[in-house]
Amino acid sequence: MFDAQSAFPQARMTALTAIFTRRSVRAFSSEPLTDQQVECLLAAGMAAPSAGNAQPWEFILLRDKQLLEKIPAINPYAAFAPQAPLGILICGNTTREKYAGFWIEDTSAATQNILLAAHALGLGACWTGIYPMQERVQGFRQLVGAPEYVLPMAFVSVGYPRKAVQTSVDRYKSDRVHHNVWGQQ
Amino acid sequence: MFDAQSAFPQARMTALTAIFTRRSVRAFSSEPLTDQQVECLLAAGMAAPSAGNAQPWEFILLRDKQLLEKIPAINPYAAFAPQAPLGILICGNTTREKYAGFWIEDTSAATQNILLAAHALGLGACWTGIYPMQERVQGFRQLVGAPEYVLPMAFVSVGYPRKAVQTSVDRYKSDRVHHNVWGQQ
Repeated sequence: MFDAQSAFPQARMTALTAIFTRRSVRAFSSEPLTDQQVECLLAAGMAAPSAGNAQPWEFILLRDKQLLEKIPAINPYAAFAPQAPLGILICGNTTREKYAGFWIEDTSAATQNILLAAHALGLGACWTGIYPMQERVQGFRQLVGAPEYVLPMAFVSVGYPRKAVQTSVDRYKSDRVHHNVWGQQ
Repeated sequence: MFDAQSAFPQARMTALTAIFTRRSVRAFSSEPLTDQQVECLLAAGMAAPSAGNAQPWEFILLRDKQLLEKIPAINPYAAFAPQAPLGILICGNTTREKYAGFWIEDTSAATQNILLAAHALGLGACWTGIYPMQERVQGFRQLVGAPEYVLPMAFVSVGYPRKAVQTSVDRYKSDRVHHNVWGQQ
């Protein structure tokens, strides 16, 4: 078992701070990540809940620069991908599902864990969306040679932030909260 | 702005510990939650990333026991819902989307934040799936009187755990990790 806290005794950021100060990071230094950092991110993803505990996910680590340089053509919103030392392609594997169709939610929970773990390790990360945009799904599937039953859901760039990360913003919106009945605020 | 760490100075659980020790909790004491705890959970959800930062989510707080007692008939896997002091129905609002179809991923990231925040506050929570099962979507929509453009994604029960929470389990599976190319391990 990967013991994250023992591996990173200095990573003392609280859970609440991580949740509230995590921001998308799109500019990275060239400093590579250690294998232990990468393992921590993957283990964090796999610690997510999933429907029926099916864990219907696959993680494709992209570190090959030639592959990373092809990503902006697949998703222009991931133009920064080649500058990051690591990309993680998070996919659903529909053959691993216990309850059909929940793989999107399961892989999204895993992705959020990865973003928070990266932040807790002093790294920066950015989630770029793939599914349900079919051209992006196919582009990433071709890029890594995945079979049809593997559905790329998101691509996350990870690295050391090149500049100071902005602090938290207030996203709280009281009109999104309802009491027992829709619209009762 | 809701300042979670100032509101809960004692909640010092690290992010890594929260990620790796969070477990589904399905048995709750009757002790109610404070308004501040509930606000923290909602703010955590709203701190999640979303496609185009559209934040296409709605949170319906269920504390009415008569409503909570109707939930097991909608989803038998949420049989424990009436015993929890709070349920949060997390929905996508398709009229708030910037990029169509990403609301599932956005609301899932928000839900994972809520689970982690609950754990960090010493509470327990359990994610029960709704979307894409149409009978559950309709059942929850009717329960709270939400319009067609609001899609219930998940229902989360929250409360104080009635018994000690199991510690972390090892979900790391090295065969889910691929290097640059599908199947390259």
